[in-house]
Amino acid sequence: MKLLLIGYGNVGKAFRRLLHEKKDNYPILQGVEIAGIITRQGLMVGDKENFSPDKQLTVLEAIDYINPDVIVDMSVPNYKDGEPSVSAYIKALSRKIHVITVNKAPLALKFREIFEVAEKTGAKIGFQGTVMSGTPSINLFRIQPVAEVSRIRGILNGTTNYILTRIYEGLSFNEALKEAKEKGYAEEDPTLDLNGFDAAAKLTILSNFIMNRSLKLGDFKFKGITEITNEEIRRAKSEGKKIKLIAYADNYVVQVSPQIIGPQDPLYYIDGVENALEIQNEIQRIIIRGPGAGPINAAYGALSDLVLLLEGCL
Amino acid sequence: MKLLLIGYGNVGKAFRRLLHEKKDNYPILQGVEIAGIITRQGLMVGDKENFSPDKQLTVLEAIDYINPDVIVDMSVPNYKDGEPSVSAYIKALSRKIHVITVNKAPLALKFREIFEVAEKTGAKIGFQGTVMSGTPSINLFRIQPVAEVSRIRGILNGTTNYILTRIYEGLSFNEALKEAKEKGYAEEDPTLDLNGFDAAAKLTILSNFIMNRSLKLGDFKFKGITEITNEEIRRAKSEGKKIKLIAYADNYVVQVSPQIIGPQDPLYYIDGVENALEIQNEIQRIIIRGPGAGPINAAYGALSDLVLLLEGCL
Repeated sequence: MKLLLIGYGNVGKAFRRLLHEKKDNYPILQGVEIAGIITRQGLMVGDKENFSPDKQLTVLEAIDYINPDVIVDMSVPNYKDGEPSVSAYIKALSRKIHVITVNKAPLALKFREIFEVAEKTGAKIGFQGTVMSGTPSINLFRIQPVAEVSRIRGILNGTTNYILTRIYEGLSFNEALKEAKEKGYAEEDPTLDLNGFDAAAKLTILSNFIMNRSLKLGDFKFKGITEITNEEIRRAKSEGKKIKLIAYADNYVVQVSPQIIGPQDPLYYIDGVENALEIQNEIQRIIIRGPGAGPINAAYGALSDLVLLLEGCL
Repeated sequence: MKLLLIGYGNVGKAFRRLLHEKKDNYPILQGVEIAGIITRQGLMVGDKENFSPDKQLTVLEAIDYINPDVIVDMSVPNYKDGEPSVSAYIKALSRKIHVITVNKAPLALKFREIFEVAEKTGAKIGFQGTVMSGTPSINLFRIQPVAEVSRIRGILNGTTNYILTRIYEGLSFNEALKEAKEKGYAEEDPTLDLNGFDAAAKLTILSNFIMNRSLKLGDFKFKGITEITNEEIRRAKSEGKKIKLIAYADNYVVQVSPQIIGPQDPLYYIDGVENALEIQNEIQRIIIRGPGAGPINAAYGALSDLVLLLEGCL
């Protein structure tokens, strides 16, 4: 099975390392090879740790050149139009090349269009890594079949949850943001985390997949944490409560917004960069929590998808 | 696909109802039929709601008579020797008849023996319902492949957790037990819950499956809640702590025992009949919580296994 990796940043490197580490012990991975890695600098043919482009090709050209069995998208989300990933997925899936992605933008922008192509050809899409990274979220629904989900609620963005936690503990917003950057929990430009955009992208993907919606980013309201004052957080604290950025979807409402929640709410205890997802279906309510980010975690999400694909379980 | 149900108590009835409810909406279930139900009273041929035996057969004879594709074991655990289920599994699996079970006893007593037969013939075993009922536990590991688990910790018995919660809230042990019985959370003879046996059976199955152990019930120490005094629970409470019955396994230790835990421990917040499982692997720590019992939940665990089997993903 030939892989073409798109993007070779921290997640791509972690994925390559993890794949090599695991290959010896897991027979199912032994036929897997990285046939090429494409970045904005071009295509590197074959599997080498240090990237240097062999050919000046675009992503679409690289698919023709490599003719992979699977493309693994580890590139940074482009929320303007999802390109070049959207076109790459369409091209790949229409040729029955499978897609595994940790890149949220294409599925948050063109979920139905992409899945329609996959359904036509029978190609599979693995996207565990787009939501909560390596903590089972998307794939959790694969093992909970035939039960209608009526509500999901979660803390899906680690950056904002870390900042809210640190303000609760006494820092100012700016101190908390600075610390989050220093620890690698916030990017240099944290806008898409802070304004709720990242959480909204994840909620879009989850709602479309689980609740059979046809949402695109922008179809519902989202609000981030930038308008919350330290004073509001302290007041909530003095009443025994916390402010959390909650992603919520039921059959009527889809939204991301800060909520004041108390200790009777399981999400009250999700602090720092941890993520959590609460799922209510017709049978039961379950909650899963775990790390929602980190290059190794995202790589593990993608590798889990690869194994499920090889097992015929995507 | 022909099913033979073993046992027709609350779980068996809930499973039959759920299967019929879901058949219309889920094409994957449309070829599934209940070909017979066997209880201690004999075999009822075909699929009827009200049980009346048609033939005086044993479970082993019923497998010959029905020749099912899958046996679904909903019978009450017999911890003496696991029979008649153990012999039924061995017979079925050796003929490549698949097994789905919510009955813990056979796998807690003869895990390796049963799996060895399955491996020889390629028959599959679904056993999500043996641990945490319909809340993903066993099946959670199917979507987290290729990562070594180094530690699991959980609250796996709802009866004892309910009683401990109610004592914490002010009841005496006897009042709490009485209430648990009234609410259907404790059986008439609650011994196997109270003495830690039920949690130990679940921990045995989990450890064998996840950590590749070859444990049998009795290979490790387990302690229940019967020796905990109300005074101890109140003292813990006065120190801001709770006593919980914790099932624990790492590479050295496997045990079930009451533990005093504080609010920094996520299991502190698992109250009443809820269950939770914390999984530490080389990549991450995740925690899942949800109902650990109930006939509909157990039936849903078994039905999830059936769908995964039909998808080729068990």
